[in-house]
Amino acid sequence: MTKTLNIGMVGYGFMARAHSNAWANVSHFFETGYRPALKAIVGRNVSKVRRVADMFGYESVETDWRVLIERKDIDAIDVCVPNDLHAEISIAAAKAGKMVLCEKPLARTEAEGLPMVDAVEKAGVPNMVWYNYRRVPAVMLIKQMVESGRLGKIFHYRAKFLQDWTISPDVPQGGAGTWRLDVEAAGSGVTGDLLAHCLDTAIWINGSLDSLTAMTETFVKERKNAETGAMQRVGIDDAAAVLTRFQNGSLGTFESTRYARGHKAGYTLEINGEKGSLSWDLHDLNRVQFFDHSVAGAQRGWTNILVTDGDHPYLGKWWVPGLIIGYEHSFTHQVADFLDGLKTGKPAAPSFRDALETTRVCDAIIASGKSGQWISL
Amino acid sequence: MTKTLNIGMVGYGFMARAHSNAWANVSHFFETGYRPALKAIVGRNVSKVRRVADMFGYESVETDWRVLIERKDIDAIDVCVPNDLHAEISIAAAKAGKMVLCEKPLARTEAEGLPMVDAVEKAGVPNMVWYNYRRVPAVMLIKQMVESGRLGKIFHYRAKFLQDWTISPDVPQGGAGTWRLDVEAAGSGVTGDLLAHCLDTAIWINGSLDSLTAMTETFVKERKNAETGAMQRVGIDDAAAVLTRFQNGSLGTFESTRYARGHKAGYTLEINGEKGSLSWDLHDLNRVQFFDHSVAGAQRGWTNILVTDGDHPYLGKWWVPGLIIGYEHSFTHQVADFLDGLKTGKPAAPSFRDALETTRVCDAIIASGKSGQWISL
Amino acid sequence: MTKTLNIGMVGYGFMARAHSNAWANVSHFFETGYRPALKAIVGRNVSKVRRVADMFGYESVETDWRVLIERKDIDAIDVCVPNDLHAEISIAAAKAGKMVLCEKPLARTEAEGLPMVDAVEKAGVPNMVWYNYRRVPAVMLIKQMVESGRLGKIFHYRAKFLQDWTISPDVPQGGAGTWRLDVEAAGSGVTGDLLAHCLDTAIWINGSLDSLTAMTETFVKERKNAETGAMQRVGIDDAAAVLTRFQNGSLGTFESTRYARGHKAGYTLEINGEKGSLSWDLHDLNRVQFFDHSVAGAQRGWTNILVTDGDHPYLGKWWVPGLIIGYEHSFTHQVADFLDGLKTGKPAAPSFRDALETTRVCDAIIASGKSGQWISL
Amino acid sequence: MTKTLNIGMVGYGFMARAHSNAWANVSHFFETGYRPALKAIVGRNVSKVRRVADMFGYESVETDWRVLIERKDIDAIDVCVPNDLHAEISIAAAKAGKMVLCEKPLARTEAEGLPMVDAVEKAGVPNMVWYNYRRVPAVMLIKQMVESGRLGKIFHYRAKFLQDWTISPDVPQGGAGTWRLDVEAAGSGVTGDLLAHCLDTAIWINGSLDSLTAMTETFVKERKNAETGAMQRVGIDDAAAVLTRFQNGSLGTFESTRYARGHKAGYTLEINGEKGSLSWDLHDLNRVQFFDHSVAGAQRGWTNILVTDGDHPYLGKWWVPGLIIGYEHSFTHQVADFLDGLKTGKPAAPSFRDALETTRVCDAIIASGKSGQWISL
Repeated sequence: MTKTLNIGMVGYGFMARAHSNAWANVSHFFETGYRPALKAIVGRNVSKVRRVADMFGYESVETDWRVLIERKDIDAIDVCVPNDLHAEISIAAAKAGKMVLCEKPLARTEAEGLPMVDAVEKAGVPNMVWYNYRRVPAVMLIKQMVESGRLGKIFHYRAKFLQDWTISPDVPQGGAGTWRLDVEAAGSGVTGDLLAHCLDTAIWINGSLDSLTAMTETFVKERKNAETGAMQRVGIDDAAAVLTRFQNGSLGTFESTRYARGHKAGYTLEINGEKGSLSWDLHDLNRVQFFDHSVAGAQRGWTNILVTDGDHPYLGKWWVPGLIIGYEHSFTHQVADFLDGLKTGKPAAPSFRDALETTRVCDAIIASGKSGQWISL
Repeated sequence: MTKTLNIGMVGYGFMARAHSNAWANVSHFFETGYRPALKAIVGRNVSKVRRVADMFGYESVETDWRVLIERKDIDAIDVCVPNDLHAEISIAAAKAGKMVLCEKPLARTEAEGLPMVDAVEKAGVPNMVWYNYRRVPAVMLIKQMVESGRLGKIFHYRAKFLQDWTISPDVPQGGAGTWRLDVEAAGSGVTGDLLAHCLDTAIWINGSLDSLTAMTETFVKERKNAETGAMQRVGIDDAAAVLTRFQNGSLGTFESTRYARGHKAGYTLEINGEKGSLSWDLHDLNRVQFFDHSVAGAQRGWTNILVTDGDHPYLGKWWVPGLIIGYEHSFTHQVADFLDGLKTGKPAAPSFRDALETTRVCDAIIASGKSGQWISL
Repeated sequence: MTKTLNIGMVGYGFMARAHSNAWANVSHFFETGYRPALKAIVGRNVSKVRRVADMFGYESVETDWRVLIERKDIDAIDVCVPNDLHAEISIAAAKAGKMVLCEKPLARTEAEGLPMVDAVEKAGVPNMVWYNYRRVPAVMLIKQMVESGRLGKIFHYRAKFLQDWTISPDVPQGGAGTWRLDVEAAGSGVTGDLLAHCLDTAIWINGSLDSLTAMTETFVKERKNAETGAMQRVGIDDAAAVLTRFQNGSLGTFESTRYARGHKAGYTLEINGEKGSLSWDLHDLNRVQFFDHSVAGAQRGWTNILVTDGDHPYLGKWWVPGLIIGYEHSFTHQVADFLDGLKTGKPAAPSFRDALETTRVCDAIIASGKSGQWISL
Repeated sequence: MTKTLNIGMVGYGFMARAHSNAWANVSHFFETGYRPALKAIVGRNVSKVRRVADMFGYESVETDWRVLIERKDIDAIDVCVPNDLHAEISIAAAKAGKMVLCEKPLARTEAEGLPMVDAVEKAGVPNMVWYNYRRVPAVMLIKQMVESGRLGKIFHYRAKFLQDWTISPDVPQGGAGTWRLDVEAAGSGVTGDLLAHCLDTAIWINGSLDSLTAMTETFVKERKNAETGAMQRVGIDDAAAVLTRFQNGSLGTFESTRYARGHKAGYTLEINGEKGSLSWDLHDLNRVQFFDHSVAGAQRGWTNILVTDGDHPYLGKWWVPGLIIGYEHSFTHQVADFLDGLKTGKPAAPSFRDALETTRVCDAIIASGKSGQWISL
């Protein structure tokens, strides 16, 4: 028997739309035993939130998240608001006994995230953080190949997340579309927004970091506040680069920026091992590049795997070989895994606790960017 | 006020799932004034059709399409069954005053398709054929660029659709998954299945064909019947290649096969004009390659346009720049355009009449493949 | 003991420079037992030919090829002049007992080429036609892989050679740089100039053609004569496309044009077989793309082989892995193979007789382009 | 009148062959007023050096470089031996009044290189270090485009040089082919061998570095000595990664390793500026990727420039558009520029002094790799 899972969405922006789509379409493709119901969506601006509610078919609209959390007809709270609100809402939801799904990064700092972990663990509620790129089939394939030993001992892990949307000094900070430039709301700049994705994937695939040193920069020192119009000092990092040693002895390099012209969502990663290498690019997210050193010399090279076949992760649920999927599907897969986890009792990773590690590394990057020192993790 | 459009789906296979997804999610992204309701789905195998109905949330199930067509609560019939059934169902639906959306190709032959055109035109019902690749944003961008004169006079149009799924002689013909190999059900092989897509796009972008000559081949001469197990002569074309002259004086080459190892849904096209060239590949469907001859010599080259920005066709409705969409979105766009057409009174192309031209060209390819002669169109 | 081979070069244009470079540098990399000596170079314009002679270090200059052929100190004549002069010079050289190396295509027509074949065979002199692309290491690797059965039964052979240098109607015909547009000098347009390369490679790798049909076009009907300034009807084919059946049952498609914006030396080929596929692009001539169907499903894809390792054809003589070679090296390899052939007594292919077959196919393409009929070869 | 420049080559290994090829063929393509003569080549193993001498046509062979330097008939000494011999030979050559061309890096350390700079400057002899990648036409095009302001203000410079040839612990250190693993002979590992190339290009294009921090690693701690067979501690860096700030305010990341499976000569660079970005890959050295932000939004992308046209740097001397050149041509261009410099009196960069800066940065990388501290340059 299929059970209904009543979803309460907090937020109605870009990420809330991505999550809503996943809740709405997961049952069309995955038979998990659960059918999400889009029960309610919260936003302070009632006309704007109603428009999103109408589009996705949410049954009701609220303007106060506290009211949502008090509602008995809600099973799971999905937190899709700026980072500075993650902790309060998540903790309240956990205390109310709701499942909590929080947008990444977990919190602005480890200190802020720790009570969130405590809250969900104390409440014993299923919890998850939306590091969605783990569920891109190509990335999952990489995880499986590394785990099965196809690369052997790992020497290098390399990841970048490049964007170019804040180059103009006229982009304001704060406000609906630009809260990511406001250090109060975001906690950090590219480190928490972009590097956090790279780090989550890296730790998942290659294990924990041992130590790191970082360089951070704020290219545009002052920006107008989107709401007040006043010029303000910019507190976020516009760019960050990291040298790191993993606990398994491999070396890592990470870089992120919003000042790399021509890159929009330029998340790339590469792993070099004794027996082979793997790489991936979010812009062509259905492809994995695999160098297999075991192939005969004259025919060896980088194999461009189009990850669309039925024996690729998640792909058996979609179309036929050769037909690609997109960005949003990673969320559908995350929901499917979350629902599967409810059935098996083993909620899908990353949990709040898993995600806390990534936030701890982000803190170290910001600190090292200031001190210039190596930091042990 | 948003109106409801009640959909009756005929078929529950791969294409029916792709269409159902589009009907189900169009309102999440496009505000057309219409909200499709998945009212009923038809299939002879009641348990199989019920499973698909449950996944997509169809309100009811039928086992006879005639019953569906008689239902007063259905506005539009979506015909997603093998080609030999398109005509009968579409004509009956039109006669019943339903809107008709028919999977491509319109029919097995022009002769079979002509009464379908007559039926929908006589009934005056909105009608459309699902040549979905027109609605890939990159393909739409190409259409717009050619139309705006960016390529100048056209010299060459080149398209291929390559697959590799029937190389094994053990693949049977007929039956649910393999009716495309049965000439009775399909009408032709790669010509109607794959070249038809290439031709629809070509005619849309570059105008009608003037004449053609073709080569067709059936590599595997006999296959087992999927239902009876008996060996039977194969009647379809496994591969087809075409030389053609367009009415605008440009030359066209088209090729399709299911015997090209390594190609899954390998639809590629390229257009060469006096001022530039454009090309596209379905496997990387979010990209357009553009050679702009007007750029200064030393900096000229093929520009790889990642078609994910808000100013690209349809993309403003989806995510943020850099985040790609997939195969299924072409159907969502086609539904959105169809619903827009209902509002404006100008139904979205290609209509049954438009699609009849493609079928006429397919007939000529099959005929020329037999005669070895050039055929005027 | 290293023997000296005295070279007499006829012509001093682009191709003569490419050949001269090969004669000059072959001994720096290949130990064949022969060392070419650049003995003499011929050209009617004495100041121009002397400049090239000085650059490459030719010991002497002649202004009449007949004088060169009479010289006792010349062992081999290299014919690098427009196509209409190939026959007379080659035949005279053979009669004088010289080895003859003729630029491709052998002749303007099979009828013109036949006495050339007779002459070299009657004289018993080593002879070769400069279809240099066979000696690109990547192409040689493809030849070896097909021959060793890596692709299994072949279904499709596909080649194109695209350029864009004659789109402007202001390009004249005839004269030094533009004799390729003059049907008298060239014999044909893209067919003899470009398709001939594609055909030579195809026949070498995939065997002889059985039959073909072709479409040819002359987009610019009249051009100015480069020498007289008078407008003249254009006699060459600007574009040609071919459908063909090989004797081994595979299907071929060939296309060539000088009207494809963005393509400079756009020779590409692809071969699809039961077990895999191979493709190559002259613009990236050090790479082969290989799809190996025998790889496990989830890790299958197109492998991009960078052909620069010591175990790749010819590469052991050049640099270290990863360091690419260029266009001109194909000529050095052809000279090396020719010199090896002198030692072994088995001159390097293609001989005049081998190359006659390609010219016969070119004749058929031009004829079919006019008649619209299939032609048996 | 063309003057003869008599070359004395010290060494006969891989690099000596690359240089010899350039000296031998420069006059075939570039008219500089000088014609190099391959006068003498030096090596301790007489049979091996004689073989190379025979292949390239050196007029004489020496077994002691001191004898070569004393010869009156030698104008220029080309130093192509392991790094530990650069200083002694170069200084002696300069004192003897010879022009000196030294393979990179200039020396094992800045301390060792400083007297070399003094020597050539005191002697007033033309001098150059073979940082050949500056003369790849694509890299020169990037230099010109950055200099002309096409990128505007620079934010990021990113370079890597990845190889995979020392992963096996069975590769020895020391000896003819493996002296690069011996810290005594090489000075450092990937830093002096590979990063030095990246740094030379970066400083040339983007200006001097202000400060850096680095991470270095030796994955294989002990290797057999190639000559003695004894196991020895490995003193070189197998991998190095660098964070740096340029004096112009941009951020740099550099990485090099010999443990990146699938990379052979994987030198890649990318520059991000306010108005655009540029990137390049040595494996496809004829291509530049250019993102031009000034192009209209919907048609913006990365343009793949095939650097083979007559208006590209150096290319007018080679073949016709579309026909690529290779690795070795960078040396021919460097020789051509050196010879041009003799004519103009302005020797081609980088001079010994220019190259000293790169060595200083290499020293800082090794030091920071040990200390973990940022170093000011």
